[in-house]
Amino acid sequence: MRRVAVVGVGMTKFGSSDKSQVEMFSDAAMEAINESNIRAKDIQALFLGNGLGDFEEGQMNMAPMCAAELGMPMDAPATRVEGACASASVAIRDAFMWVASGFYDIVLAGGTERATAMGTPLATRTFAMGSDSKYEGFNGITFPGAFAMVARLYANKYGISLEKLKERMAMVAVKNHKNGVKNPLAQFQKEITVETVLNSFIVADPLQLFDCCPFSDGAAAIVLASEEVAKRLTDKPVYILGVGQASNGPLYRQKDITRIRAREAAAAQAYKMAGLTPADIDVCELHDCFTIAEIVASEGLGFFAFGKGSEAVEKGETAIGGRIPINPSGGLKAKGHPIGATGAAQAYEIVKQLRGECGDRQVKGARVGMTDTLGGDFATVVNIIYGI
Amino acid sequence: MRRVAVVGVGMTKFGSSDKSQVEMFSDAAMEAINESNIRAKDIQALFLGNGLGDFEEGQMNMAPMCAAELGMPMDAPATRVEGACASASVAIRDAFMWVASGFYDIVLAGGTERATAMGTPLATRTFAMGSDSKYEGFNGITFPGAFAMVARLYANKYGISLEKLKERMAMVAVKNHKNGVKNPLAQFQKEITVETVLNSFIVADPLQLFDCCPFSDGAAAIVLASEEVAKRLTDKPVYILGVGQASNGPLYRQKDITRIRAREAAAAQAYKMAGLTPADIDVCELHDCFTIAEIVASEGLGFFAFGKGSEAVEKGETAIGGRIPINPSGGLKAKGHPIGATGAAQAYEIVKQLRGECGDRQVKGARVGMTDTLGGDFATVVNIIYGI
Repeated sequence: MRRVAVVGVGMTKFGSSDKSQVEMFSDAAMEAINESNIRAKDIQALFLGNGLGDFEEGQMNMAPMCAAELGMPMDAPATRVEGACASASVAIRDAFMWVASGFYDIVLAGGTERATAMGTPLATRTFAMGSDSKYEGFNGITFPGAFAMVARLYANKYGISLEKLKERMAMVAVKNHKNGVKNPLAQFQKEITVETVLNSFIVADPLQLFDCCPFSDGAAAIVLASEEVAKRLTDKPVYILGVGQASNGPLYRQKDITRIRAREAAAAQAYKMAGLTPADIDVCELHDCFTIAEIVASEGLGFFAFGKGSEAVEKGETAIGGRIPINPSGGLKAKGHPIGATGAAQAYEIVKQLRGECGDRQVKGARVGMTDTLGGDFATVVNIIYGI
Repeated sequence: MRRVAVVGVGMTKFGSSDKSQVEMFSDAAMEAINESNIRAKDIQALFLGNGLGDFEEGQMNMAPMCAAELGMPMDAPATRVEGACASASVAIRDAFMWVASGFYDIVLAGGTERATAMGTPLATRTFAMGSDSKYEGFNGITFPGAFAMVARLYANKYGISLEKLKERMAMVAVKNHKNGVKNPLAQFQKEITVETVLNSFIVADPLQLFDCCPFSDGAAAIVLASEEVAKRLTDKPVYILGVGQASNGPLYRQKDITRIRAREAAAAQAYKMAGLTPADIDVCELHDCFTIAEIVASEGLGFFAFGKGSEAVEKGETAIGGRIPINPSGGLKAKGHPIGATGAAQAYEIVKQLRGECGDRQVKGARVGMTDTLGGDFATVVNIIYGI
């Protein structure tokens, strides 16, 4: 297996867009392509993450449409992959293998999604299709509901009062909004306080409005190249050191949803491939679809002992200047969460961090970064470790 | 790149089913797993093709659900890929690379789809989402319409009367139904005549009912293994000799739809990797979503000169005993076409043919076979060559 590097990244401003998914992806991809000092016709394959393009725009078979819009050569396969909210990371991992194996030298990976046009209630119902339709969807499970259960179980399991846990969950949102105002591409550009969170309406008890990431339109893309090609294209290649992907299956098969076993399995694969441990990670973009999700993810990735993730937030350990900065981009909460694109937006941030290009939100001296992307409740997890 | 072999295959009877897509896939996969002399927990990754599981059953994130249903280990990534009607072949090609690269030794690939429950008119409208939604879908393009244009253009381009062409198109359907009655898993189990076709109602002029493949429910799966592992598991490994995938983009970018350039590009990749030419192919399962589609595919794959494919049918060259047997399974027309599964059903047939297990529809002495799967109009083509 040869080494693979990211040579260019691009991302649209997340939020509400008039553009189609193909158009948004093209914007993000052209930015990545230009940054890579290549042209679209140099790309040998496209790996596109997308969750529900058919629902949102009546567009299936989206990857070839993107490839054509970009001017990629006809010989280049264009494949859409879907792993619910992890789709773009599934795409990146797959793209990585096609280059690491030696089959391709330069590929494009990322994702795109539109979700705001349908409105939040319908979007919530629609994206709940990432859970098991026969037994969960049928019974009314949506993701806020699933993570509300996680929050209650977490409080109960670790003997933390729900009031205290909710305060710490709110601190996650406060941190991520604080980071987000330093990110010009973030959907939300305003700071909030713990009171903002605790005074917002209940979505799924104990989750309140500001415990939940938004629905967003957006796209993100990265160009991957073999080490040899990467060194010709850029003087700041960021290498993929390890990848992992694992699958849990439906919620009803999971014994303890305060620990997402697929994450532990995927992270272990990535750490092993990279020859690293959690202590080696300087910065992490993880899947804070809900504030409680960030807390349990930080434990599952090995940054904190199980049950200690919430107090770590309170102690400031996950702030940009903290022990393990988490979601300097603003995370899904403040940056936004276009389902099919999110994994690539996480990659965008980590690559920018490792290149030292993050301005006010720069994690000083970051050399190793990690992305963590979760699909469904809690079926698919992809972890990717990057380094310079 | 090390050699990769198919060690087991499985397929449901195509038609109308009461089972969910996860259940059908599990049936097909268990057959493949059992035939491979392994257990589900030996599988290291799942690559699942599916077109519109969200529309049909409200199920996104289907791959982990299948993996869990089968009892695959949690460490095993489960990824859904989508390339419209080519989805399962996209999955197989991807799976192939993960084994050829050395990353995995045993993987499961295939696809599943339900389409009959929504009824043919809605299914036609829904699967038209494989075309460009902004410019084609918006204007009412559906796949019968797109292939109707192909038929008219073909007749015009090659100076064949539409009447003569329609007769030859009908012969494709007659051949495939004749093959289908020898296939217990085929959706249609009755022979037809040219008159049957020409007397059926017009779907999209000049395509009549029997020029069009049905909508179907069904699933198919194959187990792939490295050569070394394959030889321990079976005494009849069928190797993947070459793969290819290419992308055309939307219909409006295509200059001459009587020749699907993505097919020519994908086939060239496969032939080159295998070190073979069209003359080396003993049997082919290609994408006869419509009778005219079989004719143009036979030319695009290099079996006949452009413009000569329709007379070849008339001469019997594509019958089971002919020069290049095409669609001995009954093809999409008689076997059925569950969108996400079709590519794997083609693989199933080719593997069975090369093992000599096809009974009445056996192509004698077949040693090299090819699958051809098309997604959309005419955006994605995947070609895979198998050999013993």
